[in-house]
Amino acid sequence: MAGALESLESCLEQHIPPEELAEVKRILYGGEARKLDLPTAALAAAQEKDFELQGYGFEAAPEQLRRPRIVRVGLIQNKIPLPTDTAVAVQVAALHRRIEEIVGVAAVCGVNIVCFQEAWTMPFAFCTREKLPWTEFAESAEDGPTTKFCQELAKKYNMVVVSPILERDELHGGILWNTAVVISNSGALLGKSRKNHIPRVGDFNESTYYMEGNTGHSVFQTQFGAIAVNICYGRHHPLNWLMYSMNGAEIIFNPSATIGTLSEALWPIEARNAAIANHCFTCPINRVGTEYYKNAFTSGDGGKGMFRDHIQCQFPDLLEAKEKDQVGVGDFLVSHHELGHFYGSSYVAAPDGSRTPGLSRTQDGLLVAEMDLNLCRQVSDKWNFKMTGRYEMYAEKLAEAIQPFFIPNIIKE
Amino acid sequence: MAGALESLESCLEQHIPPEELAEVKRILYGGEARKLDLPTAALAAAQEKDFELQGYGFEAAPEQLRRPRIVRVGLIQNKIPLPTDTAVAVQVAALHRRIEEIVGVAAVCGVNIVCFQEAWTMPFAFCTREKLPWTEFAESAEDGPTTKFCQELAKKYNMVVVSPILERDELHGGILWNTAVVISNSGALLGKSRKNHIPRVGDFNESTYYMEGNTGHSVFQTQFGAIAVNICYGRHHPLNWLMYSMNGAEIIFNPSATIGTLSEALWPIEARNAAIANHCFTCPINRVGTEYYKNAFTSGDGGKGMFRDHIQCQFPDLLEAKEKDQVGVGDFLVSHHELGHFYGSSYVAAPDGSRTPGLSRTQDGLLVAEMDLNLCRQVSDKWNFKMTGRYEMYAEKLAEAIQPFFIPNIIKE
Repeated sequence: MAGALESLESCLEQHIPPEELAEVKRILYGGEARKLDLPTAALAAAQEKDFELQGYGFEAAPEQLRRPRIVRVGLIQNKIPLPTDTAVAVQVAALHRRIEEIVGVAAVCGVNIVCFQEAWTMPFAFCTREKLPWTEFAESAEDGPTTKFCQELAKKYNMVVVSPILERDELHGGILWNTAVVISNSGALLGKSRKNHIPRVGDFNESTYYMEGNTGHSVFQTQFGAIAVNICYGRHHPLNWLMYSMNGAEIIFNPSATIGTLSEALWPIEARNAAIANHCFTCPINRVGTEYYKNAFTSGDGGKGMFRDHIQCQFPDLLEAKEKDQVGVGDFLVSHHELGHFYGSSYVAAPDGSRTPGLSRTQDGLLVAEMDLNLCRQVSDKWNFKMTGRYEMYAEKLAEAIQPFFIPNIIKE
Repeated sequence: MAGALESLESCLEQHIPPEELAEVKRILYGGEARKLDLPTAALAAAQEKDFELQGYGFEAAPEQLRRPRIVRVGLIQNKIPLPTDTAVAVQVAALHRRIEEIVGVAAVCGVNIVCFQEAWTMPFAFCTREKLPWTEFAESAEDGPTTKFCQELAKKYNMVVVSPILERDELHGGILWNTAVVISNSGALLGKSRKNHIPRVGDFNESTYYMEGNTGHSVFQTQFGAIAVNICYGRHHPLNWLMYSMNGAEIIFNPSATIGTLSEALWPIEARNAAIANHCFTCPINRVGTEYYKNAFTSGDGGKGMFRDHIQCQFPDLLEAKEKDQVGVGDFLVSHHELGHFYGSSYVAAPDGSRTPGLSRTQDGLLVAEMDLNLCRQVSDKWNFKMTGRYEMYAEKLAEAIQPFFIPNIIKE
């Protein structure tokens, strides 16, 4: 079942003989990623604090007029540390503490830019379709406690912090957005980037919580490089990646929350394709673990319920009630208490088509990726997708295609 | 070296234990592809004629108002059967014969639509930068011998034929195009689709032979489904795939010619991403083998030449001349007689993110894929990428971004 395989890469490493493994990695990943030599103190701290720590490096060729532009990026994936029915403020505080300890290790590893997972201060509770208490996790992007917390971290570690939260926008009637707050390594608020595409798929009932973002495709010029944030479902839209790139992004983060049965086969494809197509680095991050909710909810999938072993393990009293016939078999099968297994597997993809292995499918983790941003222009000059893109034609064709009475170019016999 | 691994999939099958293999396939390929039960006569013929024959099926859910729309698609990848210095007409005739025998087997397998590789009637000789004899392979799309040959096949087997050739356009000054000719199963010429994006990468010097296509993003409504042809380098441009899909394509073929060192890590990503992003089937096809040219040519890569063992094997007299000091070491190292190893690996990707294994990296092959085209709309209704695409915004943003004095949306501290 989902969760059984610790990671695809460790499975390949374990079973495929070395000489063939090199070819498999070349075909699957564009080669063997260079392992970073991370500080012993960081590795020890990660082990003590029970999270995976991996580091990989991407090279670029030396140039005459530009010095290498080396940056270390940190991607953090994590479970929620407390049950979802714990008081909101207590859950937020526990998440702050967990992220604080992982960011501390990132600092030891020399990370310059860190990004957390989507809506990182809360369980991904939109599946419940309940408003309270979940909307209470929303905060001001400008002066909420989480932004203040991240500003402290940024200053302390001289680190750019990308903090994706549920935003309460008091300036516009107190509405909600799904927003990444970007904080400079100086501690100053650089700005925010809202999720452009809102899912209408499965139990991801997000479109009843917030609307399509109105911040366009902002790129943040930090001291370490030009970054952008494409939140979660925007990963599925090639035009979304393209516009961040058109505005100059060299690294595009993709903080996400997505589950095994829905999207795991898409996960290694989409962000990596975006890195290739746009000559930039992409950093997809997914949370890990399964999040349980007290109130059962139903899905629009004709009744696929929770697995019996999950119920047995997490809600033994529910199973007991069922066996005493206090709960009907129909309810038991149809309603469930969890969205599914978040499979982690955060990774970094490079413009040359190569990528790092993914973090664990089941464990908290920090992925450190060192990259020379000069690689972006080098690959662009080699492959020339931007130069050969014929964007004039597409701007025109797209404008035609959205017309209500568009006539498609179909040739019949 | 390139060519050593017969296929990624056979390597995984060989080494990974069954229970883990199922998970690996789910994560890598969206699950285990259903194997088609192909006719014994076809399997025997393939073995006799020395090409790989594989068949896989994609399912869709039953619907009430639409019957399943089952179609069998055939992808053919092949080496050139004769040396490149054989007379042009003899090479073309040999390719016609080779394709004829593979299409005969495709017919036995019930294939409804067949697609050949890019510029299938010739070696992929653009790397040489020579014009003669290579431009003599160009033919009229309307009444050239290859189109007539394909019309006969189409009628004989009631099969739609997609025939990518080098086109000589007599109507417009005898210029050249890289064109796919689409022939109806009735034998009638349905139309043609020209390559929209021309590579400027490595030894693919195609931009000195032909220009960007002017046939837009035509979709051909055949009896078996709405198809389109995105030729080779157009695979790297997400907008190109998108516009074929916007015009209604349910199956997009991608006849290609690409080599190991350049693109193999990109190959499993791009067409599959296009199938996901556009809720359609995509069919990338790559030729196989290494093609040798009599006249050595140089590459713009600072002198990576041909491997000594290749020279020894293919041009023993050249090595002899070198050893007699009739050829300088510099020439010997820098110039070469081949573009590189075409790695085959043709596959079919489905809108739900799943895909077939790839054909061999080294052998001629026919891949038969059975698909229920109802899957396209089913996945579209589930994931809703078209509905959530915000194309109005992108038409506008793209029109802005192409302006010479475009001001990117960059936020600084």
